Amino acid sequence: MSELKGACIVGQSGGPTSVINASVYGVIDTALKNGSITRVLGAEHGIKGVLNDRLFDMSEEDPKELSLLKYTPSSALGSCRYKMADPDVDDTDYRRILEIFKKYDVRYFFYNGGNDSMDTCNKISKYMQKVGYECRVMGVPKTIDNDLYGTDHCPGFASAAKYIATSCMEVYQDARVYDTGMVCIIEIMGRHAGWLAGAAALATAKGAGPDLVYLPEVDFDMDQFLADVERIYKEKGNCMVAVSEGIHYADGSFVSEAKTSATDGFGHAQLGGLAATLADVVKQRTGAKVRGIELSLLQRCGAHLASETDIEESYMSGKAAVENAVAGITDKMVGFERSYEDGKYVCRTRLLNLTDVANTEKKVPLEWINSAHNGVEQPFIDYVLPLIQGEPNLPKEDSLPRFARLKKVLAK
Amino acid sequence: MSELKGACIVGQSGGPTSVINASVYGVIDTALKNGSITRVLGAEHGIKGVLNDRLFDMSEEDPKELSLLKYTPSSALGSCRYKMADPDVDDTDYRRILEIFKKYDVRYFFYNGGNDSMDTCNKISKYMQKVGYECRVMGVPKTIDNDLYGTDHCPGFASAAKYIATSCMEVYQDARVYDTGMVCIIEIMGRHAGWLAGAAALATAKGAGPDLVYLPEVDFDMDQFLADVERIYKEKGNCMVAVSEGIHYADGSFVSEAKTSATDGFGHAQLGGLAATLADVVKQRTGAKVRGIELSLLQRCGAHLASETDIEESYMSGKAAVENAVAGITDKMVGFERSYEDGKYVCRTRLLNLTDVANTEKKVPLEWINSAHNGVEQPFIDYVLPLIQGEPNLPKEDSLPRFARLKKVLAK
Repeated sequence: MSELKGACIVGQSGGPTSVINASVYGVIDTALKNGSITRVLGAEHGIKGVLNDRLFDMSEEDPKELSLLKYTPSSALGSCRYKMADPDVDDTDYRRILEIFKKYDVRYFFYNGGNDSMDTCNKISKYMQKVGYECRVMGVPKTIDNDLYGTDHCPGFASAAKYIATSCMEVYQDARVYDTGMVCIIEIMGRHAGWLAGAAALATAKGAGPDLVYLPEVDFDMDQFLADVERIYKEKGNCMVAVSEGIHYADGSFVSEAKTSATDGFGHAQLGGLAATLADVVKQRTGAKVRGIELSLLQRCGAHLASETDIEESYMSGKAAVENAVAGITDKMVGFERSYEDGKYVCRTRLLNLTDVANTEKKVPLEWINSAHNGVEQPFIDYVLPLIQGEPNLPKEDSLPRFARLKKVLAK
Repeated sequence: MSELKGACIVGQSGGPTSVINASVYGVIDTALKNGSITRVLGAEHGIKGVLNDRLFDMSEEDPKELSLLKYTPSSALGSCRYKMADPDVDDTDYRRILEIFKKYDVRYFFYNGGNDSMDTCNKISKYMQKVGYECRVMGVPKTIDNDLYGTDHCPGFASAAKYIATSCMEVYQDARVYDTGMVCIIEIMGRHAGWLAGAAALATAKGAGPDLVYLPEVDFDMDQFLADVERIYKEKGNCMVAVSEGIHYADGSFVSEAKTSATDGFGHAQLGGLAATLADVVKQRTGAKVRGIELSLLQRCGAHLASETDIEESYMSGKAAVENAVAGITDKMVGFERSYEDGKYVCRTRLLNLTDVANTEKKVPLEWINSAHNGVEQPFIDYVLPLIQGEPNLPKEDSLPRFARLKKVLAK
């Protein structure tokens, strides 16, 4: 494969995570140092920044500030939820993207996101192939939901999992402090996959977590749920529950659905308010004091509880995307595979076809969910625990986070 | 003052904090080493443990586990919300307490809590004086609300403030990631005092915090609030708001009041759901995407973000209670006074009369609230910032918190 010289664009898309900027820093840092890449451009708000010709020249940034991206949550370049049309139906956006790629001589495109973003990335890759414009396209994974196909796990998941487990351990201490008893219901993100809700069980494994955990991989039964809660509350005087926002009845309708009819840009139902809904139902049934807690955005931006393993792997995925692209690879997403060497967890990158990854969801294996459908089994814990290890040395100023401050100079 | 030999009881009461156990450890650690104190008893669920003769022998605990109390959130001995009767009306409880004190030869009583708990402590102190039973009674302060009279600040406040400021900085990154704009409303604890809601402004002082902060010290005006939010949302495309759960209209009614009529054991209205209520109103007015986030219990048990200054001061307050009592002092609460030596913040203990402290609330000075009533002034920031300094070296196991595990052996 002959050397391909040209500019690169990196963009971020979908819901942010605590470490998505670590991935983008992996791309930027590696690309800035690479001789084949003539220019590193950051797209404002993902693919929208390309369409709107809003591209930042990353060489204008202070390297020290760029390095703080490793510890800065959320998408520093800005994100989007923008659904690309089928190019055979409407190729307007694709022609515009090609125009911008030609304008800046873009030969490398790195897109950092989850399922929907990999769909975008895949469509762009295939379009460029079809029109014969040489551009190496690589997906850089990100999602707290951990639901990307073909990779052992996804950057962002472990830090959210660590936030959830730690917060559950702390709330466990608090929610059982009175002798009057309480039921506490914690609502956790995850529309169709229960990886995050399951992570609450790490707290249980440490002796201070939820008694009951409900995942969206199995149907939710309100009567069984109420019976479970009532039994434990009667036994222990307290009950702590973790629920995925995506739990649904056998007919597929979300338990939270009645609360809101708003949808996001991809047409997904916007969930929320589930903890409050369940708290009401449990209160009516048991008469207990009940508190519903929604971890909300906190769980996906809680960088102060990030896993150092997750940060390093996120950086590694961005770096691998650039290195592989420069070496001639295209049309792939960087994934992870794990092995154990002398009993020690090791993570290496592997490349997956974008076509395979786009829009496929990886769920928690049913055999990792207990037979009562209200908890997870030990293999789930063994899977997650290595991912959350390590405490980052967080940059602070006055004992508060010191996040990256980018200048965001538009490219000429 | 002649030496007084006897047992001590230590109890915890009211809502827990991240560092209330650091105070109790200050009491236990100091008392166990003190020759005048023959026995250290921990009351299960505060004064209820005395009434029910449920007292733990603290000498039975592993000293290493006890030392982990410095980093273990919530009330390890158990807490209560129990309102003591006026002893002139009904002295049943007081006679029972005296009986238990005599049974275990209790000559020292340390009570760790906030306003209501200091009322309990004060009533017991005065009763023992009245009946001529020699027992030195000391209050050890605790409250995230920071509303105890006569002390510069209260143990527990700074750690909650640090949690709030850090979380706001992280949410700020997340809530402005899309180009479609969003209003984010964060609900913070504090029934009558706005110290905690004001702490959100530390994030703003660091360039990444709420645009608007509403405290309960001033009346809330819904029309003005909506006008404020709409103006900023139009200007910036985003708006972040921090509100105290205790905001109220000019007639004194809580903005959240319509949501629930439940009350806690002290007869306070149980607040909650305010963020969701305001989010609904803002959504109707502006049409913007709005997210309400309630920091709920997380803010008071988030020990992983505790201030080392707060931990050390909490321990110091417990230690000072024991040392002063042994030296002959009684009927006081340990408070703090601050000074600056060579520009460096210094905190020392001072003693306050329990009578003065009981049931008096200290609010945010009105001159620290801006004239528009939607933010705080620099003196507020200068007051809080020194208190949140320092990162504790948190004990961890598998990168998750390692909290104290007490045996809780009942005293014979």
